[in-house]
Amino acid sequence: MGEVFIGIDLGGTNIKLGCFDTELKLLDKTSVKTDADVGPEAVVSLMSDAARKLLADNGLPEDAISAVGIGAPGPSNLDEGIVIACPNIPSFENVPLRKMLTERFSRPAVLENDANAACWGEFVAGAGKDVSDMVFFTLGTGIGGGIIIDGKLVHGSADNAAELGHIIIYPDGRKCGCGQKGCVEAYASASATAKRATEAIKAGAESSLKKVLDENGEITCRDVYEHLKAGDELAKKITDQTAKALALLCIDMLHTTDPQRIVFAGGMIAAGSILLNRIKAYFDEYIWSLKKEMVDIAFATLGEDAGIIGTAALARKLIDEPKSD
Amino acid sequence: MGEVFIGIDLGGTNIKLGCFDTELKLLDKTSVKTDADVGPEAVVSLMSDAARKLLADNGLPEDAISAVGIGAPGPSNLDEGIVIACPNIPSFENVPLRKMLTERFSRPAVLENDANAACWGEFVAGAGKDVSDMVFFTLGTGIGGGIIIDGKLVHGSADNAAELGHIIIYPDGRKCGCGQKGCVEAYASASATAKRATEAIKAGAESSLKKVLDENGEITCRDVYEHLKAGDELAKKITDQTAKALALLCIDMLHTTDPQRIVFAGGMIAAGSILLNRIKAYFDEYIWSLKKEMVDIAFATLGEDAGIIGTAALARKLIDEPKSD
Repeated sequence: MGEVFIGIDLGGTNIKLGCFDTELKLLDKTSVKTDADVGPEAVVSLMSDAARKLLADNGLPEDAISAVGIGAPGPSNLDEGIVIACPNIPSFENVPLRKMLTERFSRPAVLENDANAACWGEFVAGAGKDVSDMVFFTLGTGIGGGIIIDGKLVHGSADNAAELGHIIIYPDGRKCGCGQKGCVEAYASASATAKRATEAIKAGAESSLKKVLDENGEITCRDVYEHLKAGDELAKKITDQTAKALALLCIDMLHTTDPQRIVFAGGMIAAGSILLNRIKAYFDEYIWSLKKEMVDIAFATLGEDAGIIGTAALARKLIDEPKSD
Repeated sequence: MGEVFIGIDLGGTNIKLGCFDTELKLLDKTSVKTDADVGPEAVVSLMSDAARKLLADNGLPEDAISAVGIGAPGPSNLDEGIVIACPNIPSFENVPLRKMLTERFSRPAVLENDANAACWGEFVAGAGKDVSDMVFFTLGTGIGGGIIIDGKLVHGSADNAAELGHIIIYPDGRKCGCGQKGCVEAYASASATAKRATEAIKAGAESSLKKVLDENGEITCRDVYEHLKAGDELAKKITDQTAKALALLCIDMLHTTDPQRIVFAGGMIAAGSILLNRIKAYFDEYIWSLKKEMVDIAFATLGEDAGIIGTAALARKLIDEPKSD
């Protein structure tokens, strides 16, 4: 009984699921398509079937599971374990996901916001494992955030803390999907970076990316970084703007929670040191001169596994500190 | 022995000192000039003399003191109880203020940053006494900040959290005293508000404030709000810009720590409901439309006593929870 922790990362496209030992060593993982139309009960069945198969494949008995953790996108009531809404899984509305998992697995379960879960993964096992105060950003379609203070995730009074993609960087600037103007997400997410490049080319900017746009009908963030590495001037300018927005975000967070480390994750960090070095250079240029700042700006190290590691770690915490808040 | 808590607010001009009972009821208070030239030992003597006189005036024995709290401006090492520097008290450099007070009073002492101390005062006895998560701004010469999460002050990894006046609102905007450009402090502090009015008049703007500038050689923030109440158009425009900058700051903090209440303090709140209502209106205009936000934006209620109440409360906490971090 109880030597394995299950970590689940519920996404709009895929459900990732990992099986970990008590030291949080990954034993095995799998991924199944999220069938968004079938409703929460069927999605929970997908999860329990996948977990059962993972255990069987690894010669583990069904009752090996000690606890289950899950990260879900969209607003949730974490205390109650309820997913309020998932923008990419419309059938998920006011779903008591923690209770459903607890019943299905006959084990304790914990629900966390997906960005917080990835943040926790990096904190316990990745880029933040040697610090106690960390800020985390995940750069994807949007920008998600996580804040750790004194070794604890900050949830906020209504479980809405660390919506860091919606920090306003340029007041009255680019329209964000959230309804605000000038959010950092509207400049520096992977999709905003691609969009700004597309707009610039349509407005007549010269770039080797024009051929990509003409041939594919769209430009991705990956295209921008590939052409950046090949020396394209527009790609350089677009990346600079992304780096500046992210550096301003780092400065704002430094002055807010004063972390030891700021960690960037998400597909966009594949751009590598060119991007990281530009962020650091803008940070140095725009930070105050009152005192020397020692905060370390770094890229995440766990890749796509951060979510399942983080949720498995939260599941283990549930067993280790059952009464902790 | 030990029924009284002393709260001290060390400022560049005055030292305020209050004597409180175990329920944090103010028994009596006093204020003495800060003699910036005499050095830390003499300043501590000023404090202990003032405390002794307060006790005597109120018929209390010298050993009535249970613990002492002090708030100091400028960067400190709070764990060690050391004031690293005070911009307005040059003789204070690497002063072990907590140890000095502990020895002088023969009682436990606690050191806190001055804005955090005022924040804690409002949290335990003022505008935040019914909430657990709060963000606090004090609008004076600069803008100070305080953050409370789950009933605890956030200090940060190097005791530099909540330097909220240096959140960048307008990148590449007005120069701030800290060396950054576009800090909210450079727009919305009392002195920045007065400065913007002065600049506008010198640039030819029509305003009833011109007479004040001509007669006094300067405009104060108080002048701006008096002329605002009298209907001056420039005063209205300047106040609008202040309110917008503060509203953007509220939005950024909402998305960061998700507080139940945001509290503004400092001399500038004397402007009253005209200012508060403009801040709220800009908040409503600029906040996202994803969900209705319930955060309450309010003015502080303790006035200039917030610092001494806050430090006395921290002194009491020291006795009630001696091992708490």
